[in-house]
Amino acid sequence: MVFAYNFNDMSSSKISSLQIPKRLLMGPGPSIVADSILEKMSKAPVGHLDPYFLSLMDEIKVMLREVFQTTNEFTFPISGTGSAGMEFCLVNLVEPQDTILVGINGLFGRRIADLALKLGAHVHTLEVGWGEAIEAEQLEQALKKVKPNLVALVHAETSTGICNPLEELAPIISKSGALFILDTVTSLGGCPVFIDRWSVDATFSATQKCIGAPPGLSPVSFSPKAMEKVAQRKTKIPSWYFDCSLLYGYWGSERSYHHTAPINNNYGLHEALRLILEEGLQKRWERHKNAHLQLKKALSELGLEFFTPENRRLWQLNAVRVPQDKDEAFLRKKLLDQYGIEIGPGLGPLKGKIWRIGLMAEGANQENVAKLLESLKQVLKS
Amino acid sequence: MVFAYNFNDMSSSKISSLQIPKRLLMGPGPSIVADSILEKMSKAPVGHLDPYFLSLMDEIKVMLREVFQTTNEFTFPISGTGSAGMEFCLVNLVEPQDTILVGINGLFGRRIADLALKLGAHVHTLEVGWGEAIEAEQLEQALKKVKPNLVALVHAETSTGICNPLEELAPIISKSGALFILDTVTSLGGCPVFIDRWSVDATFSATQKCIGAPPGLSPVSFSPKAMEKVAQRKTKIPSWYFDCSLLYGYWGSERSYHHTAPINNNYGLHEALRLILEEGLQKRWERHKNAHLQLKKALSELGLEFFTPENRRLWQLNAVRVPQDKDEAFLRKKLLDQYGIEIGPGLGPLKGKIWRIGLMAEGANQENVAKLLESLKQVLKS
Repeated sequence: MVFAYNFNDMSSSKISSLQIPKRLLMGPGPSIVADSILEKMSKAPVGHLDPYFLSLMDEIKVMLREVFQTTNEFTFPISGTGSAGMEFCLVNLVEPQDTILVGINGLFGRRIADLALKLGAHVHTLEVGWGEAIEAEQLEQALKKVKPNLVALVHAETSTGICNPLEELAPIISKSGALFILDTVTSLGGCPVFIDRWSVDATFSATQKCIGAPPGLSPVSFSPKAMEKVAQRKTKIPSWYFDCSLLYGYWGSERSYHHTAPINNNYGLHEALRLILEEGLQKRWERHKNAHLQLKKALSELGLEFFTPENRRLWQLNAVRVPQDKDEAFLRKKLLDQYGIEIGPGLGPLKGKIWRIGLMAEGANQENVAKLLESLKQVLKS
Repeated sequence: MVFAYNFNDMSSSKISSLQIPKRLLMGPGPSIVADSILEKMSKAPVGHLDPYFLSLMDEIKVMLREVFQTTNEFTFPISGTGSAGMEFCLVNLVEPQDTILVGINGLFGRRIADLALKLGAHVHTLEVGWGEAIEAEQLEQALKKVKPNLVALVHAETSTGICNPLEELAPIISKSGALFILDTVTSLGGCPVFIDRWSVDATFSATQKCIGAPPGLSPVSFSPKAMEKVAQRKTKIPSWYFDCSLLYGYWGSERSYHHTAPINNNYGLHEALRLILEEGLQKRWERHKNAHLQLKKALSELGLEFFTPENRRLWQLNAVRVPQDKDEAFLRKKLLDQYGIEIGPGLGPLKGKIWRIGLMAEGANQENVAKLLESLKQVLKS
């Protein structure tokens, strides 16, 4: 058989097989992945409607509910990264006539507001400084003023290392009657998250932070109240990929074909959730806290200071001030090139000013903290 | 440390580690994945802004351009499955004031029309029967009548096994001046696809068909004319995850953080593209054609008939009539349970009437056809 076409032969023939370097991932994510998770991901895929895959989906749903601490039936992973989960929550729940209050104390709150604006909603923001938490009194005042029918908050602000105090904020939102959307991308699996206890109506997370699987899926959960909001929509959902009723045709009992789920990523997520529940949520949170305390000790040995106030500090994502006389990008590159350790830079207004040190999932242990301490010690001398 | 909360301990403690069965995937996708691709996917991830990952992204872009046969700068994988690629194309290019003509001869044309309706566009359809192709004359007449500024077609209709004759249709669309969106989900890598030669302005594919990697990414490409359409938009793009300017901040030279790319899926895609170009596009297409011809011979041995007319038949997805006296679901289940072979059922109006036999990527070979023949022979006896 002969093809008459002129082929566009590009320079790609020079491209050789990947030789992937080993890194110790101690940045804002992706985090270190356990070997057994990678092993599951390397298995040949079965079909997306294979009875075996359907039962695996059921198990993922059961385990996700426990990790989210929710009884929401509508709990499953979106086939995309954490931002896809954000988009899933907003395109289904936000309409042009809605008024949404978004708490912003970093990059990820801003994103929610940006998308709500794109969807045509009336967007109000409660903004505090990068490195500050949103406090109960501020939220109460904003709610009084704005009277939103939706409120969106970020639990763990990955861009600043701040943990917004959900135990205090959640009851205030619940009292207001507004629908509550919570970003649990960096919190889930690394510190207490209680979707039902906090009356969260919609939440999205990601696999590559404290869940400890590679990026590619975004666990989400909708409460019955959220489903009711979708049922009452006045406008069409401007999405097919994220349309919750279509998605639930596949992930629910109907099993109707919607899209081809990323099979291998779901293998990885299944194993990651299994490892979390085998360890136990409480023990896992304690492990994250202990690694954080160990890091705190190590940083003080090095004379480095936290950027975040102690009472609102995340365990899994540690924002640390770069010494004033140091070039952070140069030192960070050296850490990567010479020691294979990745830590994260500051974003936006914090660029050049902070490092973000992640102690997430498999990576939250004292051995890694010790390695980082030793390497940072050398690097800081230069 | 003690947590005061009551834990919601569900039944998930009974869930054990995955024991994934082996399947010979001969359905509509996912297709069989080469061992070297699975091996790359099992490597520990590096960070999404690691210099190594950035150079890997560049290599993927170069290889994708060659596989798509395009010089479009804006060519990269979307972090989602094929349907995410469809959504990417439409949310960026379709506005409420647009008039779009969608060719429909199966499930996947219908999907494009459904999403365009959700986006508020004026949607016209050119519908022919499931199992028929869209022919040049029909398209010419529809274009004359509707005068759309956008046209969308499916190249390889996975639901029916039909190959729309792009060599004849593409010049007609080009002459009309309309922006041309083409679904290459099942065609790319399995039969001739020429994005530039056909003046396609936007295309989306998927990794789990003839590219031969697991599902999870959707290669896309936008022409300069498509980019111009985005620049001229009168309304906001109702998406953050799929916003092409934000995405290209990450995949372009700027390298600004947008979302965390699914690292391991990109490892797999890199290897899959490398294998395609190592084999050569032309040889790969011939391999798919030869496997198809072998299947044709095998089916006639079994007394089975194609559903599709010979001149519009796909090589990679073979729609075959189920013998009238047979229960297709029962036989298909037997094939899976007893021989580990997956073939696909009919969808929509073809449910119970056809089987869809995929010969895609790694799976397009004579050995698999022989295995299927032997197993089908046994199964049909029952």
